[in-house]
Amino acid sequence: MTFSKRIRERADSIWAASHQHPFVQGIGHGTLPLDSFKYYMRQDYKYLIDYARVMALGSVLAPDLNTMSGFAKALDETLNTEMELHRSYAARLGISRQELEETVPGPVTLAYSGVMMAEAQKGSIAELIASILPCAWSYYEIGTELAKIPGATEHEYYGEWVKMYASKEFGAIAEWLIETLDGLAESKSEEELNRIEQIFLNTSRYEYMFWDMAYHQQSWPVE
Amino acid sequence: MTFSKRIRERADSIWAASHQHPFVQGIGHGTLPLDSFKYYMRQDYKYLIDYARVMALGSVLAPDLNTMSGFAKALDETLNTEMELHRSYAARLGISRQELEETVPGPVTLAYSGVMMAEAQKGSIAELIASILPCAWSYYEIGTELAKIPGATEHEYYGEWVKMYASKEFGAIAEWLIETLDGLAESKSEEELNRIEQIFLNTSRYEYMFWDMAYHQQSWPVE
Amino acid sequence: MTFSKRIRERADSIWAASHQHPFVQGIGHGTLPLDSFKYYMRQDYKYLIDYARVMALGSVLAPDLNTMSGFAKALDETLNTEMELHRSYAARLGISRQELEETVPGPVTLAYSGVMMAEAQKGSIAELIASILPCAWSYYEIGTELAKIPGATEHEYYGEWVKMYASKEFGAIAEWLIETLDGLAESKSEEELNRIEQIFLNTSRYEYMFWDMAYHQQSWPVE
Amino acid sequence: MTFSKRIRERADSIWAASHQHPFVQGIGHGTLPLDSFKYYMRQDYKYLIDYARVMALGSVLAPDLNTMSGFAKALDETLNTEMELHRSYAARLGISRQELEETVPGPVTLAYSGVMMAEAQKGSIAELIASILPCAWSYYEIGTELAKIPGATEHEYYGEWVKMYASKEFGAIAEWLIETLDGLAESKSEEELNRIEQIFLNTSRYEYMFWDMAYHQQSWPVE
Repeated sequence: MTFSKRIRERADSIWAASHQHPFVQGIGHGTLPLDSFKYYMRQDYKYLIDYARVMALGSVLAPDLNTMSGFAKALDETLNTEMELHRSYAARLGISRQELEETVPGPVTLAYSGVMMAEAQKGSIAELIASILPCAWSYYEIGTELAKIPGATEHEYYGEWVKMYASKEFGAIAEWLIETLDGLAESKSEEELNRIEQIFLNTSRYEYMFWDMAYHQQSWPVE
Repeated sequence: MTFSKRIRERADSIWAASHQHPFVQGIGHGTLPLDSFKYYMRQDYKYLIDYARVMALGSVLAPDLNTMSGFAKALDETLNTEMELHRSYAARLGISRQELEETVPGPVTLAYSGVMMAEAQKGSIAELIASILPCAWSYYEIGTELAKIPGATEHEYYGEWVKMYASKEFGAIAEWLIETLDGLAESKSEEELNRIEQIFLNTSRYEYMFWDMAYHQQSWPVE
Repeated sequence: MTFSKRIRERADSIWAASHQHPFVQGIGHGTLPLDSFKYYMRQDYKYLIDYARVMALGSVLAPDLNTMSGFAKALDETLNTEMELHRSYAARLGISRQELEETVPGPVTLAYSGVMMAEAQKGSIAELIASILPCAWSYYEIGTELAKIPGATEHEYYGEWVKMYASKEFGAIAEWLIETLDGLAESKSEEELNRIEQIFLNTSRYEYMFWDMAYHQQSWPVE
Repeated sequence: MTFSKRIRERADSIWAASHQHPFVQGIGHGTLPLDSFKYYMRQDYKYLIDYARVMALGSVLAPDLNTMSGFAKALDETLNTEMELHRSYAARLGISRQELEETVPGPVTLAYSGVMMAEAQKGSIAELIASILPCAWSYYEIGTELAKIPGATEHEYYGEWVKMYASKEFGAIAEWLIETLDGLAESKSEEELNRIEQIFLNTSRYEYMFWDMAYHQQSWPVE
């Protein structure tokens, strides 16, 4: 069993909770309240800025030129394709680009991006990949699943979102990260693999909590 | 007004919520359930490991030898004095050192330490100090306040905790961080100061959430 | 006077020594021994890998999305355009891509890239820019000057090199770095500016030493 | 064969060149011109500041609490014991502490400390140790060897230097680094070990070049 299969299995209950979350299902069935989606768009935009930073850090820590180029491509994809989707959504939903950038990050947004950055900083390239993989991989899984729901890709508001995350281009990044991690895992000790698995599980949990935060438009408990 | 006064004022409602939190008051009045305290000890031990890492990163980013030495001293104080208090508590409470180190960090523990590390990594020494200051400073304030409650420093379980965080030695670290930050703030632009203030406010919020997590012995929403 | 003008003036004697170095003049007049050029191509390829890393680190440390995108673009330009020139040269000069990547870095190559990385790591985005600017800027100056020498851009071996570094596309990166640094410098104290100037002067010196290392095909004093 | 033995053997010709260098022999036999020693003291003081930074980074990257504490201790030892020796020497040699701190680093000083920082930043804790080990280990070897020369430890100027680097306390740091590296090496692939070996060889070469720079009181080729 590849290392990616192992950690995907171990995270299955967490991922299942994400897939079945009313926010995710609401996107697929077109039933999600638009206000929740707007909140999500703003928070996810802030999240993606730090997600892109971790991609950039991937180029810094990359042990060879191929890995460095892979992360440079993923960085470009995040800043230009993925965030552009958000900007065009925001425009349609009446959120200006400035408003988008000035969003105050919520507690889970800040937590999730902080944890990715911290694990990447403390660890090596394998820990870095483990920290970002739940985002790249589960979005591709979710996009692919939701795209099978009749009408999901045609929905006035949520159709583009579904199409993008179900796209081959987006999936290619997840697949490249998985392959790279599996390659790195081959020369790791079991102790290291456990640490890497823990990172994957933890950011999988924040992934779930992010959906939940967006659904409830959660704010900070103290201001 | 010094920059530290400014951000302390701005954070006042958050800090007041922490000071009045039943966990904190429960330590001072000796009414905190011991199980909550045990949970806290374990989580705080994990937190302190990353807190110490940020102190070490302070020595890396320090612009001069004095600042570097100050952080080296704070690192030593954290690893040896502050964490030793936890280890001796743990021993009395029947938690082994190994158990302490193997604690699975809760959602706020991981979030808080991740955010400190990430801000320190993205920013310079001033951002780093802003991220750790709410911990160092508010513990000293809390320790000093609780020490005034009759019997608080003599309590069988919580007395030592109160004495340590009310001590001059512990307060000296907070004061040094405050002075250093005020010095750095003098040559910062208002835009930079706002960013530094935001970091201080955010880690102040996680400080509050940490008390709350401990009080409720909060676990992850998905396992 | 802008900060970039100030440091360019201060570095003038160092830059003049580089411009007049027989290696640089030899490229412009087509008189450089091909063996020196081959040595340079190999060493510069290794150098560019770490130069690209520092560009990636620029995206990590960037205080806003525009700066982050600027560095992502510069990273892509370095990995794809600039290094591609080297790969196509290598192919023409009978050096395989593998050979290029397996080059053992010489003492100045390693020193120069190490110093860039270290200054970027210890400092903030301004220190990072100061560390890479002598490379981006002086190459554009040199390319532009050499392009005025009759026949320089048509030389069988060195013509493409001259054309690339004299190109508007390449110059645009240098100009963007200069503008960004000048913007950042506005809110810096004189003490900080002096530190940033020192970094610029030091990497300017390694820039000179790199030409000299290549000219003499310098090896390590001890193996 | 332990990994440390392997790399020590591989570096033997470089280390032999250092041990036999007139600077090193001149310390042992008391024949080194005092001006070279003064130059060395100033440069080494600057070097040690960054060497201490790498120790601090060791605490940041440490995978467990023991390793973190080990680096915290080495950081303290460097800042307080090793640099104190330099400060007391400087006082005796008529160099003020301010003068010591304001030393302009020479080309090898900057290169060597930059390369250590860069390797530590790009790699994990094993790469970090490999980058600093030639300094810690070879100084202990040199101190121990020179201490056998009759009168070396009693020399008016160089005796204290010899005694310090031959001391058990200093040697303990080198031994701890060696043990830690050997432990880490056990779960590394041959590809990773080769990379770590290269780092060790490269900083061994800068170690030699540092002696040579000091002996010739080398300045920058361009100012």
